[in-house]
Amino acid sequence: MNEIVPGVQTTSALSQAGPPEMDDGPLQAGPAQVDSGLSPSIRVELICIGTELLLGQIVDTNSIWISQELAGLGINCHFQSKVGDNLDRIVLAIRTALARSDAVIICGGLGPTQDDITREAICVVANVDLVPDPEIARIIEEKFTSKSRVMPINNLRQAEVPRGAVTILPELGTAPGLALTIGRKRLYCVPGVPSEMKEMTKRYVFPDLVEYSGTSSVIASRTLRTWGVSESRLSELVAPFYEELEEETRGTTLAFLASGIEGIRLRLTTKGPSIEETTTILDAYEVKLRSILGTLVFGVDDKGMEDALAELLLGQAKTIALAESVTCGLVAARLSRVPGISQTLKGALVAYDPMVKFSLLGVAPGPVVTHDCAREMAVGARRLFDSTVGLAITGVAGPDSLEGVPPGCVFVGFAFNDQRVETTQLQLPGDRLAVQELAAISAMDFARKMLNE
Amino acid sequence: MNEIVPGVQTTSALSQAGPPEMDDGPLQAGPAQVDSGLSPSIRVELICIGTELLLGQIVDTNSIWISQELAGLGINCHFQSKVGDNLDRIVLAIRTALARSDAVIICGGLGPTQDDITREAICVVANVDLVPDPEIARIIEEKFTSKSRVMPINNLRQAEVPRGAVTILPELGTAPGLALTIGRKRLYCVPGVPSEMKEMTKRYVFPDLVEYSGTSSVIASRTLRTWGVSESRLSELVAPFYEELEEETRGTTLAFLASGIEGIRLRLTTKGPSIEETTTILDAYEVKLRSILGTLVFGVDDKGMEDALAELLLGQAKTIALAESVTCGLVAARLSRVPGISQTLKGALVAYDPMVKFSLLGVAPGPVVTHDCAREMAVGARRLFDSTVGLAITGVAGPDSLEGVPPGCVFVGFAFNDQRVETTQLQLPGDRLAVQELAAISAMDFARKMLNE
Repeated sequence: MNEIVPGVQTTSALSQAGPPEMDDGPLQAGPAQVDSGLSPSIRVELICIGTELLLGQIVDTNSIWISQELAGLGINCHFQSKVGDNLDRIVLAIRTALARSDAVIICGGLGPTQDDITREAICVVANVDLVPDPEIARIIEEKFTSKSRVMPINNLRQAEVPRGAVTILPELGTAPGLALTIGRKRLYCVPGVPSEMKEMTKRYVFPDLVEYSGTSSVIASRTLRTWGVSESRLSELVAPFYEELEEETRGTTLAFLASGIEGIRLRLTTKGPSIEETTTILDAYEVKLRSILGTLVFGVDDKGMEDALAELLLGQAKTIALAESVTCGLVAARLSRVPGISQTLKGALVAYDPMVKFSLLGVAPGPVVTHDCAREMAVGARRLFDSTVGLAITGVAGPDSLEGVPPGCVFVGFAFNDQRVETTQLQLPGDRLAVQELAAISAMDFARKMLNE
Repeated sequence: MNEIVPGVQTTSALSQAGPPEMDDGPLQAGPAQVDSGLSPSIRVELICIGTELLLGQIVDTNSIWISQELAGLGINCHFQSKVGDNLDRIVLAIRTALARSDAVIICGGLGPTQDDITREAICVVANVDLVPDPEIARIIEEKFTSKSRVMPINNLRQAEVPRGAVTILPELGTAPGLALTIGRKRLYCVPGVPSEMKEMTKRYVFPDLVEYSGTSSVIASRTLRTWGVSESRLSELVAPFYEELEEETRGTTLAFLASGIEGIRLRLTTKGPSIEETTTILDAYEVKLRSILGTLVFGVDDKGMEDALAELLLGQAKTIALAESVTCGLVAARLSRVPGISQTLKGALVAYDPMVKFSLLGVAPGPVVTHDCAREMAVGARRLFDSTVGLAITGVAGPDSLEGVPPGCVFVGFAFNDQRVETTQLQLPGDRLAVQELAAISAMDFARKMLNE
C-alpha cells in the first residue's frame, strides 16, 4: 500500500521489519525487539466524515496525523474508517466502532451547514436530544463581531450540543468539539479542518485519552531525521544502541519511520513521571544517537532539510545564492518556506537553457552535466548575487538522456567566499519529478555538510 | 476533513452544494439537481490492509484513486476502512463490510511475507481452505527465472488460493488478485502496490463490477478545469446549461469538484452503448461549456496550469523567462515538470533580495510591491534571458507586511517582445505557503490569458 516515492533510501523493507505481533505499535527495526509495555491497553478507533473523502476529492491528511500522534503516545489504533455525510451510515459507523474499540475519535461534520450532521448522529447513538449551549453561541457570535462580520444564522447550529456531552471550546475556528461517555466507551468529535483538529486534539483529546487509559506517566517522543543512508545501514549503525535500550528498564523504544522522499526518521519514545524527566531521558539518548550518526542527522521532529540549512546559514551570518538547472527553482522555493529566510537568501538563477549558464554564470562553453559545470555555476552564482555561499545543481531529470548522461545523474557544486569550491556527484532513482526533488534535498544536504565542516 | 489550502476560489461552499441525500455521488451544484440514473444501485466498500497505514507512515493513495474511479463509473462507495495485519481484525472488517455492502474491494496483504494474511482471512470468512494453484506457482517461478533471480521459497505462499476463488493473474508484480462470491456478495482482493493495484482493478475488477451491477452501457467522464472564479459564480454561468441537461434523456450529469488550490473542476459524465458514442456526446457538451466559460477553462482532465501555459508557448513557438520574487522559483519548478519544456523555458531569476531586482533586472530603486516593479521585472527578465515573453511576480507572502503592504498582495507583470507590457494585482488568502502557491498559479494563468488574446 506504499506510494513511497523512490528515494535514496530503500524503504520497502520497512513493512517486513516487525513480526506480525508487532501490529499497531510503531514498527520496530534493528536486531533487538525492544517491546516496552509503553502501550496502554485501550484501543482507539478513528472515523473521518465527509462525502468528499469517499469520492477521493481530498487527501485525508487528518487520519495520517492522528495515527502518528497515537502511535507516538503508544496508544493502539486498530481500525480507521471513512463515511459520507449521511445520517444512517454515520450512526452505523459509530456503533460499529464503539462495539469493537474502547474510544472513538470522529473527525468532521461539526460545521454550520446542512450536511454537517455529526451532532445529530451522536444524539441517535447516545439516545439523547440536542440542547442549545448559550456559552458556545456567545463565543461564536463574538468571533464574527470581532471581525466586523455578520454571522450567518446557521452558524448557531454549532452551538447545539448532544445532551450530556462536554464541549471543547474552539480556539481557532467556530466549531466546538465534543467529548462524551457512552456505556464505558469514550467518544470524541473534532472539526475536520486540519488546524482546528490538531489544536483541539493536542489540547484536549490526547490528554483525556491518556488519563482514560489509566496511564499516569507521561509518554514523550523525539524524532531524529536522517538523510543519505539506507535503512539497513542505519539499522547496523544503531545495533549497539539497541542493546543498550534492551537493558534499560524504563521501556524506551526506538522506531524507524519512512517519510516519503524526505529521508528516514528515528523516533525515540519513552515514559516517566513528568515531562521534565522524559525530556532528560530523551536528551541523553539524543546525544548518544547523534554521537553514533553524526551529520547523518539533519533535524529534529518537524524540521526539514531547508530549515536545517537556513539555520546554519543564519547562525553563521552567511548569505547564499543558488544556480539551479535540473531542480529548476525547487531549492529556492523550499528555502523560501522558512520564515526569516530573506536575511540569508539573496536569490537564484534558474539556468534551464545551457546558454544561460554560459552567458550569465560564466560557465565555460561545453558539456553542462559535469563536475566542472557544477563548480563554475556555484562560483558564478556567488559572483552574480554577491553572496558568501554559492550552491549549484546540474543534472539530468529525464526521461531522456542528455549529453550521453543517463537520467538521475546529478552534480552539486558548493562555493564559499573565494576560498573553497567543492562538488559531488549523485545517481538518483525515480521519474523526472522524483529526481528533481531528491536532487533538491541532496543539494541542501551537501551545503549543510560543507557548512558544518 | 479538508486539507484544501485556501484558494482564490472559496471551496468551502462545495460541501453545501448538494443536499444530504446526494451523499456518495459526485457533488451536484447549480440550480437544477440533475439526477441521472447513471449510478448502478450496487454499493461497493473498500478495505485497505496494512499496519503501516494505521501508524500514519504512508499516505493511502490507493483509496483516493479507487474512490475517484468508482465515482467516475457512477458506482456508490459508502464506507472505506483501514485495518492492520492482524487476522481477527481483518476477518471482522471483511464481515462488517459484506454485511452492509454488495461488493468489497480489499487492497493489500497479498504479498509473500508472514504478515500478508489477506488470503487466510478470506478463508475464514468464506469457510474454505487454501489450495495450491500450480499455474500461479509456475508463473511466479517464471518471473524470477526470467530475471535470473533465485525465488525465495516464501513467494510460493502467493500461489495458494482460497478454494473456489478466481485468481487474477499478475501482469506487473508476483501477487495474483482474487475474486469470489460469498452469498450474493462479490469480494475482490488486489495487491497494495499502487501500480499493480491500478493495473488489476482496471483490467478485471471494474469491468466485473459493472457487469455485476447489471449496467451494460459504457460510462465516460471528462473534466474541464477552471481558474479564477468562485464556485457560486461558475454555478450562475452554467445555469442555462443545467436546464438543457435536465431536458436530455441520456442522463448526462455535471458535477463540481474542488481540487485543492488548483481551481474548480467541472466533470461531465454520460453513458451510451459505446465509447464512440459517449465521446461524441462529451465532445458536444465540452464545446457548449467552453462557449459559456471561455478562457476560464484552462485544461482538460489531468492537465495542470503549467501544461496549459507550456502548450500555448510551444504552439506559438515563443520562449519565456521568469523573474520571481514572492514565488521564489515555484513557477519555474512547476513549468519544469512539463516534458519538452526546455524548448521554451530559458530560465528564471529568483530576485529574493530587492537589491537583485535593481542590479540584475534593471528595476528602478524604490518600492518593490507595485505595478511598476512587476512591469520592470517582466521587461528585465526578457532582456536578461533574451526571450519572447517575460513573466514576473512580486508580492508579500507574509506573515509580516512589507513596505506597508499586507500579506497576500501580489503583482504580476507580463512582457511580450518590445511591444506590450501588462500587469495585474491580486489579493490572495491563506498563509505564507498558500500565498506563494496561489501566486504561482495566478501568474501562469495571467500569462495564458495574455497569450490567448
